[in-house]
Amino acid sequence: MAEAIPIRGPRADRARRVADVLRQQIHAAAYLDELPTESELAAEFSVSRNAIREALGILKDEGLIDRGPKVGTHVAQRKYDHRIDSLLGLKEAFKHVGEVRNEVRAAMPVVAPPAVASRLQLEPGEQAVFIERLRYLGDLPLSLDLTYLTPDIGTQILDHTLENPLETQDLFALIELVSGHRLGSASLALEAIPADAHSAATLQVPDGSALLMLERLTSLDDGRPVDLEYIRMRGDRITMSGHLIRSKP
Amino acid sequence: MAEAIPIRGPRADRARRVADVLRQQIHAAAYLDELPTESELAAEFSVSRNAIREALGILKDEGLIDRGPKVGTHVAQRKYDHRIDSLLGLKEAFKHVGEVRNEVRAAMPVVAPPAVASRLQLEPGEQAVFIERLRYLGDLPLSLDLTYLTPDIGTQILDHTLENPLETQDLFALIELVSGHRLGSASLALEAIPADAHSAATLQVPDGSALLMLERLTSLDDGRPVDLEYIRMRGDRITMSGHLIRSKP
Repeated sequence: MAEAIPIRGPRADRARRVADVLRQQIHAAAYLDELPTESELAAEFSVSRNAIREALGILKDEGLIDRGPKVGTHVAQRKYDHRIDSLLGLKEAFKHVGEVRNEVRAAMPVVAPPAVASRLQLEPGEQAVFIERLRYLGDLPLSLDLTYLTPDIGTQILDHTLENPLETQDLFALIELVSGHRLGSASLALEAIPADAHSAATLQVPDGSALLMLERLTSLDDGRPVDLEYIRMRGDRITMSGHLIRSKP
Repeated sequence: MAEAIPIRGPRADRARRVADVLRQQIHAAAYLDELPTESELAAEFSVSRNAIREALGILKDEGLIDRGPKVGTHVAQRKYDHRIDSLLGLKEAFKHVGEVRNEVRAAMPVVAPPAVASRLQLEPGEQAVFIERLRYLGDLPLSLDLTYLTPDIGTQILDHTLENPLETQDLFALIELVSGHRLGSASLALEAIPADAHSAATLQVPDGSALLMLERLTSLDDGRPVDLEYIRMRGDRITMSGHLIRSKP
């Protein structure tokens, strides 16, 4: 077997390794509330207590655990799992977890910016419908969703809203209802971005917090793109998970 | 059509909308270098120049653009696209973009922590092989990759490394080479996390920068899990993109 290559800055490196495994264990509900003691974790990971303490500091800074003298280390927050490989609205996705509540911040016809018009295959200057929602799961914001809809579908959804508030349904479900089509597929891009001051205040996180940014263009089953979304998810509350099959190199 | 619901904090909201569309346009290479002037953008988005200025400030804070008096607004960095829906190593994925270079920070047998052993279907206390690499594209770090391999495959890869440095190949390609199996599938979880101080220094980003964290368990085509990875990607350098088909609610 090859000789081990020495590690630089060993404690910080060990702390990172421990933090990554613990982060996944917290997510997998390996600990329902209290984590093992520093000594127990040190034995489990074959590292010093100082390295464990540093790892727990990392997870505390991520908002996953609370720590205090005498009270031990507790899970502060478990992230919610949103499937990346299925095209489900939040409400559908979390129906077994809890109630998703929407605060509608805007819902109106707008002139689509050229880049938006182009992606939705609208004529330059054509109207789109813009909807902005702050979405809560429990008492805390989960995501801030900006949505551009094609005018045919968007207009019906705005009308629909009057009698049947958006609060009751995901946009995906409403799009299928008013269009009479099933959704077909979506192109998406995921990034990690820092929260700008205003988005941070809206999502109730500190300035510069890590957000998971999802940009998604969804088409009907006839291939027509109808829904362009920009979704900022709180990094401390959402994990996107999925399953992949290897494609040929 | 329904009456528009008034928007609170209009300028910040408009700036966010503009920033989201511009972010996507920069990613799609709509601007090769210089962005349009503030006045041109104000006309394009039907918002005030102040809102445009605020939007550009957001993108500057994300590291995407540079701005200066008299020199205008330029693209500072375009993010690289990593496909979420194919199982490719970085080197395979970026072969048309540039050279991925690895700095091997560790490569050694370790006793697998219980949670790692369990995911790799190893006996408690069994050895795994741990490899840690800092991966560069061009002159800048792209990601910091922590990998646990099953001992059969990992040991061969460590040996292999002596004659054929890891620098030359993705681990995925090496796993297929030494195992004689194709990779089959992977389970993954994506999160946005803040960079802890040591990871930030290693990735050459400020403390607390938004990182895209990928946790991925990859199996051979016979279903056996062999490769557990924790990959920290610089949020300002990588976008993960993919295509989805709607599943039934």
